[in-house]
Amino acid sequence: MSTSPNFDDIKLAHERIKNDVKHTPIMESSLLNKWMGNRILFKTECLQTIGAFKIRGAMNFLARLKEEGRLPNHIVANSSGNHAQAVAHAAAHFGVKATIFASEAISPIKAAATQSYGAELKLFPTRPEADEAVLNASKAPGTVWIPPFNHQDIIAGQGTAALEALNDIGHVDAVFAPCGGGGLLSGTLLATRALQPNAMVIGAEPAEANDASMSLQAGEIVALDHIPQTLADGAATPSVGDITFPILQELDDFYEVDELQIAYWTQWLHHLLKLHIEPTCAMTMAAVAAWAANSPPGQTALVILSGGNISQATMANIWERDFLLQPPILNFTDDVEFNEDENAEA
Amino acid sequence: MSTSPNFDDIKLAHERIKNDVKHTPIMESSLLNKWMGNRILFKTECLQTIGAFKIRGAMNFLARLKEEGRLPNHIVANSSGNHAQAVAHAAAHFGVKATIFASEAISPIKAAATQSYGAELKLFPTRPEADEAVLNASKAPGTVWIPPFNHQDIIAGQGTAALEALNDIGHVDAVFAPCGGGGLLSGTLLATRALQPNAMVIGAEPAEANDASMSLQAGEIVALDHIPQTLADGAATPSVGDITFPILQELDDFYEVDELQIAYWTQWLHHLLKLHIEPTCAMTMAAVAAWAANSPPGQTALVILSGGNISQATMANIWERDFLLQPPILNFTDDVEFNEDENAEA
Repeated sequence: MSTSPNFDDIKLAHERIKNDVKHTPIMESSLLNKWMGNRILFKTECLQTIGAFKIRGAMNFLARLKEEGRLPNHIVANSSGNHAQAVAHAAAHFGVKATIFASEAISPIKAAATQSYGAELKLFPTRPEADEAVLNASKAPGTVWIPPFNHQDIIAGQGTAALEALNDIGHVDAVFAPCGGGGLLSGTLLATRALQPNAMVIGAEPAEANDASMSLQAGEIVALDHIPQTLADGAATPSVGDITFPILQELDDFYEVDELQIAYWTQWLHHLLKLHIEPTCAMTMAAVAAWAANSPPGQTALVILSGGNISQATMANIWERDFLLQPPILNFTDDVEFNEDENAEA
Repeated sequence: MSTSPNFDDIKLAHERIKNDVKHTPIMESSLLNKWMGNRILFKTECLQTIGAFKIRGAMNFLARLKEEGRLPNHIVANSSGNHAQAVAHAAAHFGVKATIFASEAISPIKAAATQSYGAELKLFPTRPEADEAVLNASKAPGTVWIPPFNHQDIIAGQGTAALEALNDIGHVDAVFAPCGGGGLLSGTLLATRALQPNAMVIGAEPAEANDASMSLQAGEIVALDHIPQTLADGAATPSVGDITFPILQELDDFYEVDELQIAYWTQWLHHLLKLHIEPTCAMTMAAVAAWAANSPPGQTALVILSGGNISQATMANIWERDFLLQPPILNFTDDVEFNEDENAEA
């Protein structure tokens, strides 16, 4: 029973969760704006509870179950990343027992965070074994599985980030979000089409995990046949879903980003925004730069910064060479006037 | 003519600069609060214009000159760090020509930022040569030298960060700031004594650049006899000043922090706050942890996060080993109740 969400679902989701998630601020860099020749606004979901937008979908999923009197005794999820922390935190909020199934490759810091929110963590030698175990566990009475992206209530929850941002900002010309399973990106598209029908919506994924790009070209879902290795671990999902894919087909553009570009933009966004931002969302800037290079100057873009949970190994990788020697200058001009609010984030 | 500032100077400074600097938000980590057994609030000057509190002092210095009809044609400063960027930005704001004198060891990213604000950058083989050159340049007619910390108007400007934070927060039990030349720390002390006379004010500096600590012990200013090597480059100043030192003598406590602790806390603050924070201010957390370990639980501390300008080399150093495996747990308890505003930073 796959139900596709619409904008009403996002508005309902926002009403359900708005008192329990953060209304994250919009930030920008005046230097980046000059260099891009366009105003680039960032929705800072790295500052969200659990450090990522994923809490929005998990909270909406459980809030709707509660609203309908169907809150279970036990929720289960399979994830080694931000979804694990989101489910653990949302379960604690609703007083429901949570068990997270993950592979032993989960980073120690994400394992510790998941447990700190009170969830039980079950580790398996491989991810397929964890996936099989969660399927079996979900069949127990009073137990509900919370999927990571391919569900109406998850997509609607993730779409509330764009809803908030667009209401805060007003007019934008383009909206960018990263693509893993497509939950955030499809929610972002639905919110943008409803609120700003003339704005372009553009996605990005790692070239090393380009299943969404291949699927969009093929017109059908194509799954990766290998486990991708990418700095953008939040976008390493092997396949989009049958609910997210038809929505992703409405995108105006889509970019594959190589690992060097991902590292480059992660350094530069850390430096320019002074935020600890995941490679998964910094990646999106490669698409922004391509868009800006082919657009008339003076436009406004919104970038959804999806999260800020980064392992030490990834940080060491990102910072081992110096990309700050090569500024991302497209158009260094003082001629373009932006109506900037210097205190937008305060 | 050394004039010591008082709290009235800080209030005047705030009136002068408040429309031209950011009112940076207060942030916190609920996990860190639990671990410390105390509520730790952070004044996020890394999100300030130029990425550091230094803009406050430089803007106040020039705004006062303008107020008194003494705005020069040309300002000069010697700095390889945040003061250079602050002076360059403030000069551009007031339409004054700026020349920055620095050693060739200035990091490329700080040099580029200084120039991007429109200042001329003059490089010298060593810092003493740059210092001598700025002294000569300052003697030219219509030229004013902006000192980095040892001046009434600089200290008063830096004190506005604590003024804003204490007005935002209300009651605190202790206030922490890092110490380089002592401009930020002495301004913080003056603001705190006036607004919250019962709060402790505590400083920290690198053990590798412990001139302030030696000076406080000796009862007179002691200068380092070598160029210190420390991750906390913002606190590598060889000596405090004759205006800052008597104010620093009023501190309630002072800590020397080793390099391992500086790296440890930089990783953890990046991770917990999702902010790109300089080692210089992350260092202060070693003092917070020592204070928290010796205090009854449930107190509130304010930490002034001084900035977020970090070179690639320093980032690579900080992240080369994994400190996230060892959480900073002093008191892992759910018993202490904090009156937390989950949206404090929004």
